[in-house]
Amino acid sequence: MYPKTLVNLIEAFKLLPGVGQKTAERYALVMLDQDQIHVDGFANALTQAKENIKECPVCHNLTDFDTCSICTDPQRDQSIICVVSNVKEVFSIEKMNQYNGLYHVLGGVISTQKGILPDQLNIEDLLRRVENGVEEVIIGLNATVEGEMTALYLAKKLEFKCKITRLAFGLPIGGHLDYADDMTLLKAFEGRNEIE
Amino acid sequence: MYPKTLVNLIEAFKLLPGVGQKTAERYALVMLDQDQIHVDGFANALTQAKENIKECPVCHNLTDFDTCSICTDPQRDQSIICVVSNVKEVFSIEKMNQYNGLYHVLGGVISTQKGILPDQLNIEDLLRRVENGVEEVIIGLNATVEGEMTALYLAKKLEFKCKITRLAFGLPIGGHLDYADDMTLLKAFEGRNEIE
Repeated sequence: MYPKTLVNLIEAFKLLPGVGQKTAERYALVMLDQDQIHVDGFANALTQAKENIKECPVCHNLTDFDTCSICTDPQRDQSIICVVSNVKEVFSIEKMNQYNGLYHVLGGVISTQKGILPDQLNIEDLLRRVENGVEEVIIGLNATVEGEMTALYLAKKLEFKCKITRLAFGLPIGGHLDYADDMTLLKAFEGRNEIE
Repeated sequence: MYPKTLVNLIEAFKLLPGVGQKTAERYALVMLDQDQIHVDGFANALTQAKENIKECPVCHNLTDFDTCSICTDPQRDQSIICVVSNVKEVFSIEKMNQYNGLYHVLGGVISTQKGILPDQLNIEDLLRRVENGVEEVIIGLNATVEGEMTALYLAKKLEFKCKITRLAFGLPIGGHLDYADDMTLLKAFEGRNEIE
């Protein structure tokens, strides 16, 4: 019922996660209302990003170049690697503007449920990197069952090779105690610090 | 912090309504994971839609052609026009598959708050169309203050020219009486029908 080209655009928007028919229709109609320059810009951004962005062969972060800007930055501490499950988390940590080490993107976590085994993740690469004088590996995986399992697996693999640390668990800043779940509260109790 | 081309794509996604930084990041990363053919298809769909889709000069619906497929369909009843505020509503009514008349898209509703005056809407066109032997104008505007105001304005303008009707108000099918608001309930009482 919609014009053919509009149907195509609606179908394209439905590729996006969580976007169904109604939202896709809304997106498509809004795009039609945009100026030509914005629509062309959008189309260009899509093809450009797909063409130019690849995985960094060292840390598996996304990059426009051969090796990513973090791996090639001489200012960064080459002796610390923070292991995360996906690219988004690299950028979350980068936004904090405090961490000055390198990263290693696993590309997921070990999951028996989804059938993701250690050899499908970038773990071999990580072990090779650690051989070359890395002092500390910070495990920055999510506090989920799969994240924990992967953290334990990595800790085992890296044993005696370097210092292995894990991000602290506890109450989020600004969080209310009565909204915290039992596990978070337990971790907050276990990890309590003396006030100096 | 993200590669330049990825930032461009994220910014492009932020043009969409209700899409902020986080959602745009998610959309962009998902698009990078898509096959080349899907990404190209998306980019193409955008430019094609923008290039080819225009407003029907008769009813202001969207069309790929010079005049829209509804206006040019000889099977449709040319003596009834349903007035709606925007294009999406045409397709909502078309999905019902019961209405066989024509449409007229106003392009909005009169709103003193947003400063939308009658002469910014496609009302003159509608009056011209009604002159040419239209028997009934169905006002299919939303049941909001602005919709009501526009409906009254149109009714006044079309007075004595043709029959003017308004979509029925009442309880939605499947709706629960105790969730209905006062106005809906009032309209449902006022419009009650005898059971035959």
